Amino acid sequence: MKSFREELWFNVPSRRGYVNITPQVEDCLRKSGVREGLLLCNAMHITASVFVNDDEGGLHRDFETWLEKLAPHEPVSTYAHNLSGEDNGDAHLKRQVMGREVVVAVTAGRLDFGPWEQIFYGEFDGRRAKRVLVKIIGE
Amino acid sequence: MKSFREELWFNVPSRRGYVNITPQVEDCLRKSGVREGLLLCNAMHITASVFVNDDEGGLHRDFETWLEKLAPHEPVSTYAHNLSGEDNGDAHLKRQVMGREVVVAVTAGRLDFGPWEQIFYGEFDGRRAKRVLVKIIGE
Amino acid sequence: MKSFREELWFNVPSRRGYVNITPQVEDCLRKSGVREGLLLCNAMHITASVFVNDDEGGLHRDFETWLEKLAPHEPVSTYAHNLSGEDNGDAHLKRQVMGREVVVAVTAGRLDFGPWEQIFYGEFDGRRAKRVLVKIIGE
Repeated sequence: MKSFREELWFNVPSRRGYVNITPQVEDCLRKSGVREGLLLCNAMHITASVFVNDDEGGLHRDFETWLEKLAPHEPVSTYAHNLSGEDNGDAHLKRQVMGREVVVAVTAGRLDFGPWEQIFYGEFDGRRAKRVLVKIIGE
Repeated sequence: MKSFREELWFNVPSRRGYVNITPQVEDCLRKSGVREGLLLCNAMHITASVFVNDDEGGLHRDFETWLEKLAPHEPVSTYAHNLSGEDNGDAHLKRQVMGREVVVAVTAGRLDFGPWEQIFYGEFDGRRAKRVLVKIIGE
Repeated sequence: MKSFREELWFNVPSRRGYVNITPQVEDCLRKSGVREGLLLCNAMHITASVFVNDDEGGLHRDFETWLEKLAPHEPVSTYAHNLSGEDNGDAHLKRQVMGREVVVAVTAGRLDFGPWEQIFYGEFDGRRAKRVLVKIIGE
């Protein structure tokens, strides 16, 4: 069994944003040499997500509107978490909706994706460097 | 290490619906010959889900009501994604709540499930053929 | 390839609660002897979750408030699922928001976590013994 590990770093300049990280994940897969196996890609921070959806700007604006409706950033005093001096209570909740991780099949050395599947880093408390982990196991 | 891959096809006749796909996934596991390992089952489309919950019709009606409250289909003009001519903006959001994939333990050649766990395909933009991927690795 | 399986049991004395289960999962990993691989940790019941977030009491109170807003327990007659005599329709929905499972990378014999990542058991229909599965594969 082969295993491979790499960290990807992102510094989203705004509080929230969505970054298509599929090319970086594909690079990891190439470097790993794994042809058949499973690839895990997860946010290493608890106010960010990794998820699979569509690379379409309108949809990303819909994510923004929708997540702000489900778990608004303001007023920050809404959240007991923020009593500790934080202002990112909403980010911890948004991340639950969008998910921490994706597991992707590796087949014949490629991400085994449907036609529109792309991997995104979802940032909900940005303006600093944060990490995503890629772990691949297989043969 | 063994690996196995199969696509399952579904054509849900309505816009939304829930299909218990546990028997098909169990068939894949039997064919794979894997006794100990991990099984990934994911929607290959970004307006559908694979998830584990209860095979109970009332609950599935509750999913329908609840997801329509969280991310209503109408008015379709609510969603920036639909400016591209689509009408499935809501389906991309519903899929985030319900999830893309499940990873299931394989133990002694069986899905290692609790008493009520069943795998469902959740369709949010149906009336056409769509795919689910089953990937199994182990020994 | 090595594989390891263990069940963890929890009996949360209230209807809802959050338990940091990271130490028990780390014990499993030590016992498994796996140094490089993947660890799956999932609720075996469909009214409970396993998820990764912050070990901060204020945040857990925010989860409680937020999930009750998204899928309130009362009135229990809201949910078609409860027509069967159950009162846990809300718990099945809360579990979808919080997720069934986490997959964690195993690197050099440890959970490959970012600085604040901790694994929680989320109970939404407690006051009875329920199980979490830990399955580890690797070398």
